[in-house]
Amino acid sequence: MARTGRRPGQTQTRADILAAARNQFAARGYAGATIRGIAAEAGVNPALVHHFFGSKDQVFVTALNLPFNPSRLVDTLLEGPRSRIGERILRLFLGLWEEPVTRLPFFALVRSVTTSPEVADQLRQFIETAVLAKVAAALDLPPLRVTGAAAQMMGLAIVRYVVRVEPMASATEDEVVALVAPVIQHYFDP
Amino acid sequence: MARTGRRPGQTQTRADILAAARNQFAARGYAGATIRGIAAEAGVNPALVHHFFGSKDQVFVTALNLPFNPSRLVDTLLEGPRSRIGERILRLFLGLWEEPVTRLPFFALVRSVTTSPEVADQLRQFIETAVLAKVAAALDLPPLRVTGAAAQMMGLAIVRYVVRVEPMASATEDEVVALVAPVIQHYFDP
Repeated sequence: MARTGRRPGQTQTRADILAAARNQFAARGYAGATIRGIAAEAGVNPALVHHFFGSKDQVFVTALNLPFNPSRLVDTLLEGPRSRIGERILRLFLGLWEEPVTRLPFFALVRSVTTSPEVADQLRQFIETAVLAKVAAALDLPPLRVTGAAAQMMGLAIVRYVVRVEPMASATEDEVVALVAPVIQHYFDP
Repeated sequence: MARTGRRPGQTQTRADILAAARNQFAARGYAGATIRGIAAEAGVNPALVHHFFGSKDQVFVTALNLPFNPSRLVDTLLEGPRSRIGERILRLFLGLWEEPVTRLPFFALVRSVTTSPEVADQLRQFIETAVLAKVAAALDLPPLRVTGAAAQMMGLAIVRYVVRVEPMASATEDEVVALVAPVIQHYFDP
């Protein structure tokens, strides 16, 4: 028999932590939930939550099956010249939507956010504290500018991948980058 | 008794036409449905559909309870200097979202589009033929640029009004216009 690389007890514990996390985030929001509270509900030591996931951000990303990791986003923003930050972040974002493995959770997320005020609420707190605040600090920008860029990228995904409006849906990645990267650059490099 | 200004028979006929229109748009899409087919399903003369609604666009807008009228959009685009088109269209759009009477149908529309592939399909055809093509023709622009602007405005509405991410949710209209109008201008006045 093939080995899965993880003992069943660990798999179960990890699943218990994620179930407890979903409850805690739903009950208290992203800002109100704590690693300690999640561990208590799962009946494990808080150190074990850290061991499996590292941080509250990562527990949230895993529990809600989010298709991106905000730390990776900040790394991408900072890993090249500021003058090409618009293109860099846009290509990362388009890549996530082009890959079925990340696109499907994105679709599910868009549906949940627009139909469930509770999910919208959790996601709002997560975006504000774990994504926008970090990006704004890393780039030394007013947070409002960062929400402008987020709005452009979210709307692009809806027009191109959800509603699939032509000619945006069939445009090549290079065509989209040529049109939209200057806009992201406008927000991130005023 | 107060008069409603419309005889009961007319109100019923109008409702029958809208019900038939919803069926026809669902079955054939926006592009495939016709005034003639809608009239046939409602059991009325096509001239009566024209009398009540004017055009297929307007039947669609009324049947789906859309909170805007694409003809009004084109009028707004053209009614002032091209150098301020970004601000003009953005203020019109924000005004629709600030008014409860138009915001609630917008919310319902966002939910339907993200949860129902059929509604997304109908709306896509409508946006492509009745909105984007007209705007692109009126401004002599490649349609791809118009979809970029549409993406920015749709994403802005989701961040500001649906998910309500701060500080975008609480920013004043003038702050939003100062940040985002140059982007719409970039798309519409390259």
